[in-house]
Amino acid sequence: MCLIMDSEDDHHNNNNNDGTDVLSPPFNFSMVEDGIYRSGLPRPDNFTFLDTLNLRSIIYLCPEPYPEENLKFLEANNIKLFQFGIEGKTDPPTPMPKDTVLDALKVLVDVRNHPILIHCKRGKHRTGCLVGCLRKVQSWCLSSVLEEYQKNAGLKWRQRDLNFIEAFDIVSLRKCLLSIMYRYHGYGFKRRRLAYEEEKVQTPKPQATKV
Amino acid sequence: MCLIMDSEDDHHNNNNNDGTDVLSPPFNFSMVEDGIYRSGLPRPDNFTFLDTLNLRSIIYLCPEPYPEENLKFLEANNIKLFQFGIEGKTDPPTPMPKDTVLDALKVLVDVRNHPILIHCKRGKHRTGCLVGCLRKVQSWCLSSVLEEYQKNAGLKWRQRDLNFIEAFDIVSLRKCLLSIMYRYHGYGFKRRRLAYEEEKVQTPKPQATKV
Repeated sequence: MCLIMDSEDDHHNNNNNDGTDVLSPPFNFSMVEDGIYRSGLPRPDNFTFLDTLNLRSIIYLCPEPYPEENLKFLEANNIKLFQFGIEGKTDPPTPMPKDTVLDALKVLVDVRNHPILIHCKRGKHRTGCLVGCLRKVQSWCLSSVLEEYQKNAGLKWRQRDLNFIEAFDIVSLRKCLLSIMYRYHGYGFKRRRLAYEEEKVQTPKPQATKV
Repeated sequence: MCLIMDSEDDHHNNNNNDGTDVLSPPFNFSMVEDGIYRSGLPRPDNFTFLDTLNLRSIIYLCPEPYPEENLKFLEANNIKLFQFGIEGKTDPPTPMPKDTVLDALKVLVDVRNHPILIHCKRGKHRTGCLVGCLRKVQSWCLSSVLEEYQKNAGLKWRQRDLNFIEAFDIVSLRKCLLSIMYRYHGYGFKRRRLAYEEEKVQTPKPQATKV
């Protein structure tokens, strides 16, 4: 039951209840980073919760058209949709398209798109692979990256996703970051900062003085 | 292996590598909220990662003395330790002590202690119960609270923990929040704010003027 018990106290003191709705986060929701969230496909009963995140963008990783009611929610809240159509479960299995993941990563690390929610259908495989690649950008050690993937995928974890994350080319990630003209820094309270190309301009070395 | 592949590129351009260490988060680490993290017991090889969180406090939920090397890390980084000795697995099982959880919750929601890391030994049961109670303060619906608990506990989830979270008294939570003189608001980017008792002081009503 989706209710927090109401008590007599509340009738005497509305401040205690703050007048807030009971919040229902989307399936498999969690916080990845300051300004980055992940989940399964949000349903209309999750919209009140999503509203509290003040989202600026959503990364949607499925090829299916975005549900009409979700589109309306995005429009009403001025949230930008970035869709990257990655196939889900297929027979035989389709390899994760690394160029598409790279494109999604470019959008993800761009702080101008934050706060941002990444989701596919269940928030496990496609979302898990993208977050795994982000963790590599953040210099997380591989065992921790894979542990996080597995925690979010539960019993449904896939060996080929772990292989994909492990093989994902860190050099191309770096090139992608440079291509959007900033480097991504930090985690948590050591805030990321924009380091624009200008910062790379070297100060001229002092000339050797002729004696 | 805890390494991200080094490439020839790095030797030519150190900026790409940012000179950062490879980071190893503690077992079962994740972000709960802006300024609130959870995990299992950090080991010394997690200290470099913990350093990036700029922690102000740690909530430790085990009765065992805090490891000597962890104490040194805390001292070196001016991190305050709050220990609440809750028994782990016992035979027969000990019920979760609700007063102790309430005391831990008071420390947890006090933003003066943030950024804060909650941990027990594996970050599953004791930590999961405390985070579950926090979610109730945040008005999350019960099914989402329990889903989050289960995701972090994995196959080790315990029915009695779910029962504890469900039964945890929201009224006593509210009293606890009032007792530390502020109300806790919001999630994510709608920042929490301190609402001190002073705010409750009513402005005097205008006196009826005698005609």
